[in-house]
Amino acid sequence: MSRPTLADVARLAGVAISTASVVLNNKGRVSPATRAQVQAAAQALGYQPNAVARRLASRRTNIVAVVVPSLANPFFATIVHELQGRLLDAGLDIIMYDTEDDVQLEAKHTESLLRNRVDGVVFIGQHTGMEHPNDQILRELPEQGVKLVLVERELSESPIPQIYADKEEGARSAVRHLVSLGHRRIAMVGGFLSMGGSFLRRRGYETALQEAKIPVDSDLIVDGGFTPLGGYQVTRELLLRRPGITALFVANDLMSIGVLKALQESGKRVPEDVSVIGFDNIPESRFLNPSLSTVDVPTRRLGQAAAEVLLSSLEDKTTNSRTIVFPVELIIRDSTGPCNVNI
Amino acid sequence: MSRPTLADVARLAGVAISTASVVLNNKGRVSPATRAQVQAAAQALGYQPNAVARRLASRRTNIVAVVVPSLANPFFATIVHELQGRLLDAGLDIIMYDTEDDVQLEAKHTESLLRNRVDGVVFIGQHTGMEHPNDQILRELPEQGVKLVLVERELSESPIPQIYADKEEGARSAVRHLVSLGHRRIAMVGGFLSMGGSFLRRRGYETALQEAKIPVDSDLIVDGGFTPLGGYQVTRELLLRRPGITALFVANDLMSIGVLKALQESGKRVPEDVSVIGFDNIPESRFLNPSLSTVDVPTRRLGQAAAEVLLSSLEDKTTNSRTIVFPVELIIRDSTGPCNVNI
Repeated sequence: MSRPTLADVARLAGVAISTASVVLNNKGRVSPATRAQVQAAAQALGYQPNAVARRLASRRTNIVAVVVPSLANPFFATIVHELQGRLLDAGLDIIMYDTEDDVQLEAKHTESLLRNRVDGVVFIGQHTGMEHPNDQILRELPEQGVKLVLVERELSESPIPQIYADKEEGARSAVRHLVSLGHRRIAMVGGFLSMGGSFLRRRGYETALQEAKIPVDSDLIVDGGFTPLGGYQVTRELLLRRPGITALFVANDLMSIGVLKALQESGKRVPEDVSVIGFDNIPESRFLNPSLSTVDVPTRRLGQAAAEVLLSSLEDKTTNSRTIVFPVELIIRDSTGPCNVNI
Repeated sequence: MSRPTLADVARLAGVAISTASVVLNNKGRVSPATRAQVQAAAQALGYQPNAVARRLASRRTNIVAVVVPSLANPFFATIVHELQGRLLDAGLDIIMYDTEDDVQLEAKHTESLLRNRVDGVVFIGQHTGMEHPNDQILRELPEQGVKLVLVERELSESPIPQIYADKEEGARSAVRHLVSLGHRRIAMVGGFLSMGGSFLRRRGYETALQEAKIPVDSDLIVDGGFTPLGGYQVTRELLLRRPGITALFVANDLMSIGVLKALQESGKRVPEDVSVIGFDNIPESRFLNPSLSTVDVPTRRLGQAAAEVLLSSLEDKTTNSRTIVFPVELIIRDSTGPCNVNI
């Protein structure tokens, strides 16, 4: 019989792998009953965490895993496309997990990373500004000898390398651009706000307003779910509810397409009546009508950097604790202009 | 020592795996010298193709591979997203290969499928209307005990299951719609034409013209490389060269965004002066200005069907030889209208 793994202990104890991990590594809180159950299971199986970690670390499978929120979202698909090119060139095979923007599915896949023998993991996520239920599993991976790189996902007080674009500064510069044009009634179309989605962009939006002494009005912050349809629907609703807004900061370009349509249908000219600025700079943005002002996010470079950091971690066999923040760039096109409304 | 594989024979003979396969299966043409070299290598190693196939067929790894032309293309990313959800639910792990629209890279990845122990492969491609250099490797996979499903890729005279959308009929109905509105000078913006890309759509375009007794003018068929920028550039060039065109059939919606921009910059109104119809029905199409007439392709259903056919092949252990062709649907919005030019 092969040596017992953390997954074996969890199975015998009837708990999640993350719970078994919390108990056996003495981190986080679980009930005394659960703790006793896990410890009994570990003893019964003769589980030796350090030995397992050493064994896994010493054996290379040449397989790495990529965890991604949604391949149907071009932002993430582009990161994965770049990442994958580099990893395949390096002779690695890639196991892909698409978590479909679902926390439960992410937990399931992340746990399976502990069971599967992979050399490394690139974990792509969303900054949410809150502790995430799956953070504990992520912290566990390096202790099991798996090299981990986080992309667009934070993990507080961790030496795990983290790579992301400076979305907060991007949002701040987009909204400062609107303020500099004289706008004061500036709405934000975010995405997945209740789960912490577009958290950094929201913070940048609020910071820019505060810097301009404009009160933050949470009634002007709406959720378009990151799709063109969502952007269209919430903008129609917003225009009925708050007809006086003169500018919109939209958390991605895909939603901006629906926002422009809603404005056009309401008889609002862009930018003469309402200015719109997006986020991401997807290839279609410069061809929209009017061409879309936006914030350029270097998605390809995020993917390349993630591959490079993972490959160097795999070579060094040391933990690489770099955090790389890529700057973003304000792109001014035809959808933003001076505020023509006297306030 | 483990039993020799086809890859071992190829390595010893100093030829590609596909070449070794051609010789040992007596299919296709190779030079007599190469044939002798491969046969000598097979004999030296004691290679037994049937034994290997049996051994591979009997052992399950619960790993399947997905080969995809480009995850940066939303059309393929959506297919993969759906496919993957189903396969992960079935407890399979997925190894992903992105061939970056490159024949050489596709060959490299396809050969590695023969070396890696996977239970099955979903191979996503492009119909090209020509024999493909990697077809021989694809024919080899089932003989090695690997279950194979082809999506959007043809393989002539093969029992391998093939799943695709009826792009030819979609193109034909799109162009018939333009003809019914009185248009006769109808251009086509295709993609990767020299490599056979958008082959079926081109055939549908030509069929519809012939049915209407409109001569096919190859000067009106241009290549926009499937990107918004490409669509923009070739349309500008086309309008200078052939200012009399009154309608454009565009092989994907992404290019249509650039086509609309080029028309707008040239002072052409859509649809009053020029009609435009796209292909794919991506989520942003209905929010373009004007909203885009297009052909709806059921990408999600393609991905779901591929997963179902692969899973049933894996269960049956029989070769499933179904070909499934999904119908597509003409979606008429605001970018197509009557021809207002007297010809």
